Amino acid sequence: MDKVNLADKFARFADHWSPKVVAELNGQHVKVVKFQGAFVWHHHDDEDELFLVHRGRFRMEFRDRTVELSAGDFLVVPRGVEHRPVADEEVEVVLFEPATALNTGNVRDERTVDTLERL
Amino acid sequence: MDKVNLADKFARFADHWSPKVVAELNGQHVKVVKFQGAFVWHHHDDEDELFLVHRGRFRMEFRDRTVELSAGDFLVVPRGVEHRPVADEEVEVVLFEPATALNTGNVRDERTVDTLERL
Repeated sequence: MDKVNLADKFARFADHWSPKVVAELNGQHVKVVKFQGAFVWHHHDDEDELFLVHRGRFRMEFRDRTVELSAGDFLVVPRGVEHRPVADEEVEVVLFEPATALNTGNVRDERTVDTLERL
Repeated sequence: MDKVNLADKFARFADHWSPKVVAELNGQHVKVVKFQGAFVWHHHDDEDELFLVHRGRFRMEFRDRTVELSAGDFLVVPRGVEHRPVADEEVEVVLFEPATALNTGNVRDERTVDTLERL
């Protein structure tokens, strides 16, 4: 039951596309992650996923449209919906999703993170 | 699948202690709420509760200690733990918690909100 400061957590890592767990509650994880560049197209069969921008901006691409997100914006991507985050410059993002969620969803590639670091 | 801007949501209401639902995912609610003054002591039997400060500051009182929270800080209060938020000045807070959570937990008083507004 200690407070967590988001800026402090983001200051503690530099890698991209590798979510770190900063809290767990009700079977859900709160994660922090930095995006830069284009991720892999994927979906999650069983998990809805929330993306909240802490600093910077990125766009969430769907097959039929794109949503631009800036600091203070969040977006819920429902389970089953294919998506791809793309960041022209580094962006800091908070994720809220079930503890079962894999970052690359139904896809495996070199950015798949099986064992999540805790910060 | 539209984005939500937190500042826009907070601009849409002025009342205190009355959480508004701004998103739902995985059986959890994302809520926005303004606190001012001291709330009622309570706990939640079955729900952990996350408080993220969007603007301002408040303190979470526990029976044995107090945690001070400012913008960018969050705190998870585990189920069963008695707590009372207190804000000397108005503060804007984002809540993540199960859709089943009642704002006053095990207590009923004039601030209990049975039917949540959606913004």
